[in-house]
Amino acid sequence: MYDYKAPQRDIDFVYREVLDYETHLQSFPQYQDLTWDVWTAIVAETAKFSEEVIAPLNQSGDAEGCELEGGEVRTPTGFKEAYKQFAEAGWQSLIGEEEFGGQGMPQSLSTCLIEMRGSANWSWASFIGFGLAGAKTLKAEGSKELQQTYLPPIYSGETLGTMCLTEPHCGTDLGLMRTKAAPQEDGSYRISGTKIFITAGDHDFTDNITHIVLARIEGAPEGVGGISVFVVPKVLENGESNGVSCGSLEHKMGIKGSATCVMNFEEATGYLIGEPNKGLRGMFHMMNWARIGTGVQGLCHAELGLQKSVGYARDRLQMRSLSGVKNQDGPADPIIVHPDVRRMLLTQKAIAEGGRLLVAYCAQLMDISDDCPDKEKAKRAHEELSYLTPILKAFMTESGFESASLAVQCFGGHGYIKEWGVEQNLRDCRISMLYEGTTGVQALDLLGRKVLASQGEAMKPFMGKVATFCEDNADHPLAQQVGLVSKKLGDLTAKIGAAAMKNPDEVGAASVDYMMYSGYVVMAYLWAKASVVAQQKLDAGEGDSAFYDAKLKTAGFYFERLLPRTESLAKTMLSGASNLMDMDAEQFLSQL
Amino acid sequence: MYDYKAPQRDIDFVYREVLDYETHLQSFPQYQDLTWDVWTAIVAETAKFSEEVIAPLNQSGDAEGCELEGGEVRTPTGFKEAYKQFAEAGWQSLIGEEEFGGQGMPQSLSTCLIEMRGSANWSWASFIGFGLAGAKTLKAEGSKELQQTYLPPIYSGETLGTMCLTEPHCGTDLGLMRTKAAPQEDGSYRISGTKIFITAGDHDFTDNITHIVLARIEGAPEGVGGISVFVVPKVLENGESNGVSCGSLEHKMGIKGSATCVMNFEEATGYLIGEPNKGLRGMFHMMNWARIGTGVQGLCHAELGLQKSVGYARDRLQMRSLSGVKNQDGPADPIIVHPDVRRMLLTQKAIAEGGRLLVAYCAQLMDISDDCPDKEKAKRAHEELSYLTPILKAFMTESGFESASLAVQCFGGHGYIKEWGVEQNLRDCRISMLYEGTTGVQALDLLGRKVLASQGEAMKPFMGKVATFCEDNADHPLAQQVGLVSKKLGDLTAKIGAAAMKNPDEVGAASVDYMMYSGYVVMAYLWAKASVVAQQKLDAGEGDSAFYDAKLKTAGFYFERLLPRTESLAKTMLSGASNLMDMDAEQFLSQL
Repeated sequence: MYDYKAPQRDIDFVYREVLDYETHLQSFPQYQDLTWDVWTAIVAETAKFSEEVIAPLNQSGDAEGCELEGGEVRTPTGFKEAYKQFAEAGWQSLIGEEEFGGQGMPQSLSTCLIEMRGSANWSWASFIGFGLAGAKTLKAEGSKELQQTYLPPIYSGETLGTMCLTEPHCGTDLGLMRTKAAPQEDGSYRISGTKIFITAGDHDFTDNITHIVLARIEGAPEGVGGISVFVVPKVLENGESNGVSCGSLEHKMGIKGSATCVMNFEEATGYLIGEPNKGLRGMFHMMNWARIGTGVQGLCHAELGLQKSVGYARDRLQMRSLSGVKNQDGPADPIIVHPDVRRMLLTQKAIAEGGRLLVAYCAQLMDISDDCPDKEKAKRAHEELSYLTPILKAFMTESGFESASLAVQCFGGHGYIKEWGVEQNLRDCRISMLYEGTTGVQALDLLGRKVLASQGEAMKPFMGKVATFCEDNADHPLAQQVGLVSKKLGDLTAKIGAAAMKNPDEVGAASVDYMMYSGYVVMAYLWAKASVVAQQKLDAGEGDSAFYDAKLKTAGFYFERLLPRTESLAKTMLSGASNLMDMDAEQFLSQL
Repeated sequence: MYDYKAPQRDIDFVYREVLDYETHLQSFPQYQDLTWDVWTAIVAETAKFSEEVIAPLNQSGDAEGCELEGGEVRTPTGFKEAYKQFAEAGWQSLIGEEEFGGQGMPQSLSTCLIEMRGSANWSWASFIGFGLAGAKTLKAEGSKELQQTYLPPIYSGETLGTMCLTEPHCGTDLGLMRTKAAPQEDGSYRISGTKIFITAGDHDFTDNITHIVLARIEGAPEGVGGISVFVVPKVLENGESNGVSCGSLEHKMGIKGSATCVMNFEEATGYLIGEPNKGLRGMFHMMNWARIGTGVQGLCHAELGLQKSVGYARDRLQMRSLSGVKNQDGPADPIIVHPDVRRMLLTQKAIAEGGRLLVAYCAQLMDISDDCPDKEKAKRAHEELSYLTPILKAFMTESGFESASLAVQCFGGHGYIKEWGVEQNLRDCRISMLYEGTTGVQALDLLGRKVLASQGEAMKPFMGKVATFCEDNADHPLAQQVGLVSKKLGDLTAKIGAAAMKNPDEVGAASVDYMMYSGYVVMAYLWAKASVVAQQKLDAGEGDSAFYDAKLKTAGFYFERLLPRTESLAKTMLSGASNLMDMDAEQFLSQL
């Protein structure tokens, strides 16, 4: 069935050879013990856990799903046992602060491991991420007391967590939020309201769950300026149940092994994190982390689909190659001989490996942003990451979905059948363009809130690196192409900025095409960088030449077959808002 | 829940106003009674049936699915009752020949009705199509005796049918087929083998089922030149069961209300249709029909997704318009005010309405090809349809899938939940790019078997019409653009043809991009034609100006936002085979 294998060779190439993580890690005083041998051993352990423990539960988890029984969520067979093994090995403590029982390892290592667990079984992985997301908010905004109470059980794996934002009438538009928080004399709050789409809202992995909840303190101003953020445990410190319960489970297209809950808060005891009415700031600590994690999800589905479809394309015998029989002894040639099958496989390979470069690049910025002693360097990394986050989230999930659909296509009719798991991979992937801010929301964040609002300043940290790379490799044909498309991105930005001065709808009219264009440019830069490194290794006669040769070919494919999509995007993003805005709302169903 | 409504206004526009079906139908001696009033009344009846009888079973059919019970397939609740009503009203006889109990109506009318039933409930509609597909083969190749035995019960609705082609090891590559046919003394054959992916292979709609089966007569030559086609009834004329049974049902991503069967033939009695070893010719009569029907499926999912997402976008209040508050009295603006939501809705609208034009255009060619007394005209129509069939099938299913995914996207997270039916629409749509020949197979058929094999002759009937239209509307800006992209398509064809002379893999390397390019050109021509007609109506002050105005705007959107995709496709299709073929099969998983 083409079982998942962790791409350890490419992880080493991307993190060590291209992005020089050895030097990167050694530049931090606190990561001196994290040598490359240690990193590699940790990766290998997670590879083994991903391949042997959770990958085998991926299809069965989809078939079985979660069930709500007597008010408690039962997860698919094997899920909670896998978690027990995972938690007991201490994995949840990896990036936690040492003062709260964590191991103090870098974000980048965690991100690297998320890819493997997520590719093996995204539904299972979805349970374990949000506690750490909530920890971000607690760490950044919470009082020492709250941190001391809630962080240690998260890092020990004793509790998991959630992000409770969405309500039935309010997803993107958090200003419409209705969940209420009534202050109590002891300084706590009573939280009441209904939250929907809550991943891991309830489950049987842990006895307690740490909910991070957005709510409105009684009398708070309307809109997003009246939202506060609270920590609400499922079980109170005194051992009593809090007023939090799962009302129902959503029936979804995919990620069926993940519990997506309607959560009812009925006078639940909660504790304010940070200042009243500043909840959005607290929320963004976890949201940015969740967006990066969702970008990783795009990579996960691309990698899993790639592995399955290459396996099938090598085995499935059908038709003869047009350029002559390749499998003389068989009744037909394996379909991997057909050019269009290769186009579909290489598209997936370019997206998966390019996506890994993008994830690893962003993860490096997370380390610097969070931990670099040089505050100026940290600030620049934060700004660069802020620019890249919506691109990673939206471009990688859109590309991951294209990739997952091509994996189905490689299987022909067999791809539509549950047996092979590729249709599940496509269903599981589809959510990634929706949650943690849709593609459209990311695109507006990128173009409107970041690039145009800063008059282009937001692009500079990244584009500066691109310019340096292009100068340093002025004779390299791929670097030359990167120079051209990145320069054109600057021109496009200026044109849209000028149009937006006259009509703010020009931003939304261009935003998704602009985001996709930006994604192709970012990935082109990373593929060119990888290509330069691979060529150096080949020239030096180091390592496995077939690996580096495959890198060069995949890079070449990316530039010749995927990057040209920017040409159409450039045209459509400049086509203006009027072809969207001129139609009356009533005319959209004029056909009826 | 934004229930399906048949787009009767647009059907009238497309068939009557743009394609002048009144004149078209009146040009056939046999369709004199089919006035526009009659046509419209038939459309209205099917609209009513689609909206009121089968649309309400679409989501319940997905949830319930088909079950195999005691060797017989049970269809979802309500499905067989809907069929009873449908069959009793005589709908299966619509296009049947009068000598066999049919009403002798044109293909085009049937195709127009398929759209409505398919949009309302594709799974239900999937049961009723293949009997008529089989009738094509029986009519074209079968003996008078076979026709007299098998056609009347198909047209009366007493039996339904199947197309039994695929086997576990042979989908595209029919030459690998193993199902055997042993000749008997009475002239019949005993058929033995296993067929998979058989739509409507068994069900409870009818007592008898007419299977059209490809098999190899004992001693036949290897490969496709040894395949014959048989009719194999589920129940023999003497009332006994034949050796045909459903072994199991496939578990699929979507179309769960449709029974996709593994069919076991164990010495089943069958009757040869036409000559031995000429089965592929017989097969193509039904396959071409099935491919057009699958192209219609792309339209169906685009239309259904459009209706649901427009409904939701008008109702869902979230965020304020960037260009000023539009819904002063509400807590937020409906999301249809946001440019990117409009981009997603208009993409769907352009694909659905453009797809309707394409379907109706091809259906007109079917009428002429099958029934025109002028044999030369019929031959030209046949050639034009032969060129357009792979485009309709592949371009419309790829576009339909894009469209169905955008419908999900318009709903945000709610699109991923079963409640609204848009995730089902996406799952149901995904099969359309796989069955009846994948997108890759269609693209090779178009570029290899048709365009290049004929040295471009295959394009001429259609391109001649495009040229005439462009000359007649030389001042029209959309016609000018059609002229440019169609001329460029000719240039691209010549370039690929030249490259293919040196390396046959260049065909497969360019084929899917070429097919998509061709699809955008064909749809551009039809949108330009529709635009000219809409402008004439507006100028003449006829009819509902908002309708025609919406047409002009949707056409404008198509040319400014979708047609520019041809620019990237032109570049990638010319990028050559080497970026696909140079990688060794072993290198595709070099990341592991």
